[in-house]
Amino acid sequence: MKAIIESLLDIDFYKFTMGQLIFLRHPAVPVKFAFKNRTKSVKIAEGVDMHELREHLDYARTLRFRNSELHYLRGTNEYQERMFYEDYLESLRTLVLPEYLLEDDGNGGFRLEFEGKWSEVTYWETIALSIVNQLYFSSLLKKMSRFERDMVFANGRLRLAEKIRKLREHPEISFTDFGTRRRFSRQWQQYVVQTMAEELPKQFRGTSNTMMAMLFNLLPMGTCAHEMDQGYSGIYHNSDDEIRSSHQRLLDDWWKQYGWGLSIALTDTFGTDFFFRDFTLEQARNWKGLRQDSGDPFKFGEKAIRFYESHGVDPKSKLLIFSDGLDVDTIIRIHDSFRNRINVTFGWGTDLTNDLGFKPLSLVIKVVEANSHGAVKLSDNLAKAIGQAEDIERFKRIFGYTATTYLKCRF
Amino acid sequence: MKAIIESLLDIDFYKFTMGQLIFLRHPAVPVKFAFKNRTKSVKIAEGVDMHELREHLDYARTLRFRNSELHYLRGTNEYQERMFYEDYLESLRTLVLPEYLLEDDGNGGFRLEFEGKWSEVTYWETIALSIVNQLYFSSLLKKMSRFERDMVFANGRLRLAEKIRKLREHPEISFTDFGTRRRFSRQWQQYVVQTMAEELPKQFRGTSNTMMAMLFNLLPMGTCAHEMDQGYSGIYHNSDDEIRSSHQRLLDDWWKQYGWGLSIALTDTFGTDFFFRDFTLEQARNWKGLRQDSGDPFKFGEKAIRFYESHGVDPKSKLLIFSDGLDVDTIIRIHDSFRNRINVTFGWGTDLTNDLGFKPLSLVIKVVEANSHGAVKLSDNLAKAIGQAEDIERFKRIFGYTATTYLKCRF
Repeated sequence: MKAIIESLLDIDFYKFTMGQLIFLRHPAVPVKFAFKNRTKSVKIAEGVDMHELREHLDYARTLRFRNSELHYLRGTNEYQERMFYEDYLESLRTLVLPEYLLEDDGNGGFRLEFEGKWSEVTYWETIALSIVNQLYFSSLLKKMSRFERDMVFANGRLRLAEKIRKLREHPEISFTDFGTRRRFSRQWQQYVVQTMAEELPKQFRGTSNTMMAMLFNLLPMGTCAHEMDQGYSGIYHNSDDEIRSSHQRLLDDWWKQYGWGLSIALTDTFGTDFFFRDFTLEQARNWKGLRQDSGDPFKFGEKAIRFYESHGVDPKSKLLIFSDGLDVDTIIRIHDSFRNRINVTFGWGTDLTNDLGFKPLSLVIKVVEANSHGAVKLSDNLAKAIGQAEDIERFKRIFGYTATTYLKCRF
Repeated sequence: MKAIIESLLDIDFYKFTMGQLIFLRHPAVPVKFAFKNRTKSVKIAEGVDMHELREHLDYARTLRFRNSELHYLRGTNEYQERMFYEDYLESLRTLVLPEYLLEDDGNGGFRLEFEGKWSEVTYWETIALSIVNQLYFSSLLKKMSRFERDMVFANGRLRLAEKIRKLREHPEISFTDFGTRRRFSRQWQQYVVQTMAEELPKQFRGTSNTMMAMLFNLLPMGTCAHEMDQGYSGIYHNSDDEIRSSHQRLLDDWWKQYGWGLSIALTDTFGTDFFFRDFTLEQARNWKGLRQDSGDPFKFGEKAIRFYESHGVDPKSKLLIFSDGLDVDTIIRIHDSFRNRINVTFGWGTDLTNDLGFKPLSLVIKVVEANSHGAVKLSDNLAKAIGQAEDIERFKRIFGYTATTYLKCRF
């Protein structure tokens, strides 16, 4: 077996920014993450052998943070001086990825779940996704001749070159690699990241992959994910009001912990309309910006500009990060659309690290239970919603989410 | 310095088939080979550093045939049992590539000449060409970024894939790698040869590169080059008649040495019209076939068919090998044109092993003096002619070569 994950730093940086907040405030909250294949047309178990998957997951459980890796995290000063506390780093030193559940789902797929203390299970997400993706795409390569495999990478390079060519024509566009979870393979992501760093040094801002940021002297990027909103809504769950206010609690805790440095708010966990109703004038003024992860990016951008303007805040002082299903043409169109109106940047995932001619998979590992409650993510695209039907309905009511709200935005 | 030539088997197989005949019959004849860059638009010395070139040529002079390499040659039985005699193999065991002359030509190029006993200098040809080519193309790569270099190879793979795709549509086409002398690099030729062997195992007949034939269990291919006709015309040079008859002497010696196995006659050294006048009825019957290396391949094929038919020989029992500036489309057109009329196959050079997006160079190392006489090659394309102007004029007269002869072929 050639290991897919060889380092616990081979993980998205936001796992550490979230991980520290979880460790400091809610370490023992029970949480369950579950794997989901959103690409219905693919029977994932046909490509991924469960025995092999188990081997790789088990191997990841043997990994420990190495001294130099903890040194790297300790040395992180790009967002805040001594951003990671010693207590937290000490907890990482002894971290062992918790046990997992893996079984055939009897329908061409498998159940893969991670249940345990939030402060431990959280680290599985991108690790398990990277493993499943790489096993799946390796299985496609294995069916090919040596030369056909070479052609896959030749095509991948051409596609990468085309991206670079187009981005060079727009030197004011900046972007970040967000592709760890969906990568074709570790090696390919590494190749892409290194290439972008060399070819577009002024436009490529960094990578979400902590190990690659370390290897290639890049900025490790990432702030906060749906997981935090979902976790908080399970912790503060005694009434509809408490659930609703859990969103504001998280924003508050996050700001207290990280201040301006990591103040990018994720907007779509309970629908963007709710977000803009809940995000306060003070937050609008203080926070660096917003991240868009579902729905129509153009409409979102317009809405954000109107939001800031209606609060008397100059949009040109704010930053929007787009991270939903981007490709280079969409990046350019979004950029053109908001040029000189609001700052934009891009967290580029699947299409950056898995564009070699195969249809990529939309795999996710999401919180499905938090503090023994069914967890919900609504997002601006109900196809991306997570949760039991009844919980989703309840959350839609609590957060004033309607299918049409999005279009009837008040800003 | 990373060696370009690491083995004396990294040489075209015909150097051994010719080399043995030279060794057995004319070992001490003084011969001079000279390098020529036919690509006028390129100042070769701008890409090839003379100091570096000298290092590589000197390194090649330190090489000796290894035991297992001589075993390989001794074991060659594809054309004839024990085709290489022990005396010849013994001479190879002690072979040292002779000294060379290298100097600036004051005009953006350099003089590179190999003068000495024919049985020794003959081995320089493809070795020196491979070195000059690789140094030149490496110099282009060195100006690129790492990713631009990757793109060169990605493009090369795509071009190779396109060749394979087209050839798969014509499964009756067979071909051989003749690209050692013009290769982009040893590594790339090796990649191409291995790929063709794996992807088109029924169509790819072998390679002219002896080392690669050994490495990849392929048929080593090659028979006879212009060098032999040129050498013989210098040895038998006492009168116009003797010069003219030297052509027939070589055919005779070759047949006595190798018989049917290697009986492919090269047709253009003194012009194809002369060849067809000189090639006898007996030879037409006995010899396996002909190789075309200049002029119009379609006209040549028609001429060959008419030649055989006029001698009462069934063209379908004969083989034409085309080896002049082929690309895949030309290969297909030639093949289509002669399908079911005469057997054809292809010796594919530059376009096979040096198709990565750079303009290839037309570099040659040709005999310019044989037995102290100016040597001449006319060919069917006077742009490819070799020799002093007065010698060329004399040979044109001797061999009845006129600019229009080619078109007024009597068959």
